[in-house]
Amino acid sequence: MAKDFSTRAENYSQWYNDLVIKADLAENSAVRGCMVIKPYGYAIWEQIQSVLDKMFKATGHSNAYFPIFIPKSFFSKEASHVAGFAKECAVVTHYRLKNSPDGKGIIVDEDARLEEELIVRPTSETIIWDTYRNWIKSYRDLPVLVNQWANVVRWEMRTRLFLRTTEFLWQEGHTAHASEEEAIREAETMLQVYTDFAEKWMAIPVLQGTKSPSERFAGAIETYAIEALMQDGKALQSGTSHFLGQNFARAFDVKFLSKENQLDYVWATSWGVSTRLMGALIMSHSDDHGLVLPPRLAPIQVVIVPVFKTSEQLEQISRVVGPVKSALESKGITIKYDDRDTQKPGWKFAEYEFKGVPVRLTLGPRDIEQGTVEIARRDTLEKEVFQIKDIENKVVHLLDLIQQNLYDRALSFRENNTFRVDTWAEFKEILDGTGGFISAHWDGTAETEEKIKEETKATIRVIPLNNPKEEGRCVYSGKPSHQRVIFARAY
Amino acid sequence: MAKDFSTRAENYSQWYNDLVIKADLAENSAVRGCMVIKPYGYAIWEQIQSVLDKMFKATGHSNAYFPIFIPKSFFSKEASHVAGFAKECAVVTHYRLKNSPDGKGIIVDEDARLEEELIVRPTSETIIWDTYRNWIKSYRDLPVLVNQWANVVRWEMRTRLFLRTTEFLWQEGHTAHASEEEAIREAETMLQVYTDFAEKWMAIPVLQGTKSPSERFAGAIETYAIEALMQDGKALQSGTSHFLGQNFARAFDVKFLSKENQLDYVWATSWGVSTRLMGALIMSHSDDHGLVLPPRLAPIQVVIVPVFKTSEQLEQISRVVGPVKSALESKGITIKYDDRDTQKPGWKFAEYEFKGVPVRLTLGPRDIEQGTVEIARRDTLEKEVFQIKDIENKVVHLLDLIQQNLYDRALSFRENNTFRVDTWAEFKEILDGTGGFISAHWDGTAETEEKIKEETKATIRVIPLNNPKEEGRCVYSGKPSHQRVIFARAY
Repeated sequence: MAKDFSTRAENYSQWYNDLVIKADLAENSAVRGCMVIKPYGYAIWEQIQSVLDKMFKATGHSNAYFPIFIPKSFFSKEASHVAGFAKECAVVTHYRLKNSPDGKGIIVDEDARLEEELIVRPTSETIIWDTYRNWIKSYRDLPVLVNQWANVVRWEMRTRLFLRTTEFLWQEGHTAHASEEEAIREAETMLQVYTDFAEKWMAIPVLQGTKSPSERFAGAIETYAIEALMQDGKALQSGTSHFLGQNFARAFDVKFLSKENQLDYVWATSWGVSTRLMGALIMSHSDDHGLVLPPRLAPIQVVIVPVFKTSEQLEQISRVVGPVKSALESKGITIKYDDRDTQKPGWKFAEYEFKGVPVRLTLGPRDIEQGTVEIARRDTLEKEVFQIKDIENKVVHLLDLIQQNLYDRALSFRENNTFRVDTWAEFKEILDGTGGFISAHWDGTAETEEKIKEETKATIRVIPLNNPKEEGRCVYSGKPSHQRVIFARAY
Repeated sequence: MAKDFSTRAENYSQWYNDLVIKADLAENSAVRGCMVIKPYGYAIWEQIQSVLDKMFKATGHSNAYFPIFIPKSFFSKEASHVAGFAKECAVVTHYRLKNSPDGKGIIVDEDARLEEELIVRPTSETIIWDTYRNWIKSYRDLPVLVNQWANVVRWEMRTRLFLRTTEFLWQEGHTAHASEEEAIREAETMLQVYTDFAEKWMAIPVLQGTKSPSERFAGAIETYAIEALMQDGKALQSGTSHFLGQNFARAFDVKFLSKENQLDYVWATSWGVSTRLMGALIMSHSDDHGLVLPPRLAPIQVVIVPVFKTSEQLEQISRVVGPVKSALESKGITIKYDDRDTQKPGWKFAEYEFKGVPVRLTLGPRDIEQGTVEIARRDTLEKEVFQIKDIENKVVHLLDLIQQNLYDRALSFRENNTFRVDTWAEFKEILDGTGGFISAHWDGTAETEEKIKEETKATIRVIPLNNPKEEGRCVYSGKPSHQRVIFARAY
């Protein structure tokens, strides 16, 4: 299983790719930049979807579905949106193929050219706000709290499985409000939902903050984001929530009659997370032995491997495993009993370790005699032998412990790799060394931001929420600054 | 709510469109042929997805995700598949837009032409079998039991909400097997899953059968289908399951080493249902008062409407409703208490009736005094007053009754509209009259099938499974026939 698998120290990037492929999470397809998400990887994404979907519904949102195609002209309607999104995208120009005259294969039928080209959605603000115009007439129609689970396409030149692919899966919330305050509150609420999900389910601590103007979503007044720190010292943006002001309402002429009988443009937000989260999950916890999954998102939480030579021994073990499995399942634990005789126990140990199954129970003939079971935990690779009689409570407790330990480990890593930096020399030294989050003063100008990016590839990841005011001097320009912001190189 | 709403008798087609739009299920979008599925409609689709997904998993399948784009050349690889699918489809030819030189909007960047055009998937056999080539080497890798929930695009000239749209949502199962028997068994198993779902959840009785060669899926050896009869006497194909033989394995060179160490092509199936099911659901049960939903798929199963003049009265009613609502929710019932004071009770009655909520409870001040509640059922529009004290059991029982009644009603409609026909005159007379399923002899030739279609628009819907052999003469040609098949006009 883990043969030909790079270590993180050798080559972090190669380690990541090897891991994604060898753990059966995803692979490249015949279509440049588009991935195939394999059943094991997709099962993790389904867990992510299921939890987030419940959180969205608990905060009052409903799902809907909007067209995958967007008329080209829609992109030109919101001035800054067009600059950000209408560049690298898949353009549908024709709607028919025909047999090639030479009899070899098929060709595009030039008679079937579309009058207006259609763009495969890179994001759906435009088509959704074009729809909202008919949904919203009065304050009674507000708020509109809608989410969509969908595929989107952005033509990426350099792609990496999960982290940057031409097609990816995501959810995009698009809400409409009667007031600015309510829309801002919505954007902040969803940032908090993403934060809770990242920390409590993915076991990934995140920084909450706003983006600098140059890193804002195209068309947003304010972009909120959560940022996580990967094991190689690079940041990964793990969710964004945008306050869009009245920009899209103006562009698509969406007005409402207020309680006070005034006609006004509607206020908007949008927010999303994508299959990129899979990349964050993999890179936050995994090690040189393979994938490490937090129990709350693991498709298989516990695997039971019997060690046997004869079918009689297997029968004996299965008799003991049966009630243990049922008892664990009744506690809502997802469990797999791998009693195949086509693979040896050693192969199974390696397989489930590589695939990040949080807990492994092993039972052999001696365990049956002695009423014991071996428990191995994936996060620490520790093994212990326990009496089987109260194994259920032990396992439930252990899954909680592992979830917490992964979070604690990631938090302590982040704390050890967040640096208060006051000189440009130190700034560059850290980025050329361990990397990490750099908390430094910035003069607030786009020019400085751009130069820092050019010289170091580091960008402002966030201006932390509730950032304390602090007088200082910009780490790059030396000009006055009133607060520190968080820099890092990023995925 | 129900103003400007056609009756079925006046104009069935208009009734359907009005219903879909006025019940907030779906609407047309700015993109020709593509629909917007609105939150209420999408909530029904989510119920359909959730139930089917569990059924797929219970029969051993896992979900995965494959690219939305398919290289044009892939379609030419399977000879009959190309004829069926590579015609009306969305073709991506470019991957970039740029600002128009005249400064007005954006145009396609001709420098960004793809070397090979990409087709937006109309179905995924080709890209999936191209992927399976790397997954399958030995009998140990089989079976592969994979399903995908996805959007697909088929460029339709005449579209109707849910029934025929350019983009639609569906699931497509794609399985790979070591033997012909196993693949046929899989195709039949999934037909049975679809049948159970249609009958037990959607309350729609269906005929199971195989398609005639000319109606087969492009690339299939055998197409199994379930067919339902709509209230206007037209059939609606509600799910198909295909035995693909080794056609796609040959086209994409997918071979496996058998237990006997022989290299052989892999056997395949594919099967799918789509948002078309929404059309079947609507047309099977709804009436001139609006949508009628089977309780097991209704997003809101029970609505409680308080009738009050003062806020004191509302408080009194809410105190009684609270525990009833909790008790019903604890039984897994989805319930909405609509205590808004912005709409009158009469408006709410009309609204939930139109949206097909199966059960409505109404409580006014007199009910509070007398400890009663009025129960209205949507299927029969009957109302009764009950003591509130054992209302929970009453409601649970009523939901079951409604589910069964809808099925029984639809079954009896189908029975009354299925005709054994032996003459061509009667065949045409029925189609020009009530419509319905026609059980008639067919000589087994594609020519006769085609002529019948030309003259009457009726097609062979299915050759029923386990069809009894019966000697007779073709209803059209008079030639000998050995079995009856089912004809109908169809959606």
